[in-house]
Amino acid sequence: MGWDADPANLAGALERGALDRAGGSLDDVLTDCASLALALPLPATLALLRSLAARPPAATLVFDVASLKLPVLEAAAGLPAFVGTHPIAGSERSGPAAADAALFRDRVWTYEPAAAEPARSAAVALIAATGARPVPVAAAEHDRLIALTSHLPQVVSTALAVRLGRELDEPEAAALCGPGMASMTRLAGSSWLMWDGIFAQNGQAVAQEVRSLAHILSEAAEALESGRAEWLERWFAQAARAVARLNQNAPGNEPR
Amino acid sequence: MGWDADPANLAGALERGALDRAGGSLDDVLTDCASLALALPLPATLALLRSLAARPPAATLVFDVASLKLPVLEAAAGLPAFVGTHPIAGSERSGPAAADAALFRDRVWTYEPAAAEPARSAAVALIAATGARPVPVAAAEHDRLIALTSHLPQVVSTALAVRLGRELDEPEAAALCGPGMASMTRLAGSSWLMWDGIFAQNGQAVAQEVRSLAHILSEAAEALESGRAEWLERWFAQAARAVARLNQNAPGNEPR
Repeated sequence: MGWDADPANLAGALERGALDRAGGSLDDVLTDCASLALALPLPATLALLRSLAARPPAATLVFDVASLKLPVLEAAAGLPAFVGTHPIAGSERSGPAAADAALFRDRVWTYEPAAAEPARSAAVALIAATGARPVPVAAAEHDRLIALTSHLPQVVSTALAVRLGRELDEPEAAALCGPGMASMTRLAGSSWLMWDGIFAQNGQAVAQEVRSLAHILSEAAEALESGRAEWLERWFAQAARAVARLNQNAPGNEPR
Repeated sequence: MGWDADPANLAGALERGALDRAGGSLDDVLTDCASLALALPLPATLALLRSLAARPPAATLVFDVASLKLPVLEAAAGLPAFVGTHPIAGSERSGPAAADAALFRDRVWTYEPAAAEPARSAAVALIAATGARPVPVAAAEHDRLIALTSHLPQVVSTALAVRLGRELDEPEAAALCGPGMASMTRLAGSSWLMWDGIFAQNGQAVAQEVRSLAHILSEAAEALESGRAEWLERWFAQAARAVARLNQNAPGNEPR
């Protein structure tokens, strides 16, 4: 049973079999469901959690999937059935047409280890049932690292697409873009609706990561300009080691 | 018939059926083949072209696949069978184990429109036979744009992997990397052997592109810090338009 602010999304989800039935109203869903999954942009998640905390529903599990966990935890204070979670999955596409039964397979899906029982065990079981790997990550730790591991790649992809966009009037520019540019600008197609709230909440941490990457790029530009091949070779080796460790630790994420 | 400086690569190519037979020596291949494909790092391509230009072989088609076309054109001066080409395809993997019969399917493969006949037509026919789209792009135009469309994404991916590598001792860092980080750092696994020569030849142009991206990132960091949501929203929209135009113009490159 589901509800969405946009009736077209609800109709699409019903049509694809992602829902058995649409709730008549948001209140119907909140009242009738034993487990509540909040899959909304961050500000809407916070607003809904605050209203649920004020008048807790009968549900024995309420969980969210937003990209920051500390603000969510705070908004849900007083809601014992709540478990903050974050599936480290998804793509630049959104809406029912982008639904994919294999979306979570072998992906990490984090959950708050300090959440109360029995909600926590129910969340872990639900996560495992999607094919994902439930991984306990505390909210503070999650938020400290996610600016680097998720928010920075988004900003970098967007920046690269913006740079490319300035040359696309050249007839040959698009022709000279290969699979490399395609994978580097894939995230740039992501929905602003999702990122608006993340940047509003986490702008300082993301900005710090973005500046740190800009600094690394400036160092590389200097090495390229002065032809320091040995520096660049060591730099490439460092990057290759990181990628190897990443593939080893998160095998579900290997490039497809 | 093929030749490689590393006998293991030759053996692997024979085993996978990519070659019918290995040449006894490089000279055998250069003497016996009617069409010569030079698939080497850029410096080796330039050296071989210079020696072929000094003593032209009987082959009616000699073509290369290197990532810069002006230096190649210069090295091949006096070799009428030569056509500079560049398949806008490939991945971070290399060697016979990474061979893929579908590698060129629907990809752009550029060729020098000023090359002499009949070599030029032979190159176009060979490109089409791989399933790629032959696209004429003059060397100067190619080299002006490729720093942005191919060399910049490589540097950015490497930079991101270097940044990530500094945090991978944190047990949670790899777990919090999803498919976004995976596609953004895929290129960082590329072979230094291939990039060494490209950076040596094109370092100035690449550095300029890298600085330009670092500048765009600094602007974004400022907008994030000062919470300028409208600026960021326009910036996202600009990027999304670029990605849409890219997918439209290079349909073979859509993310897989």
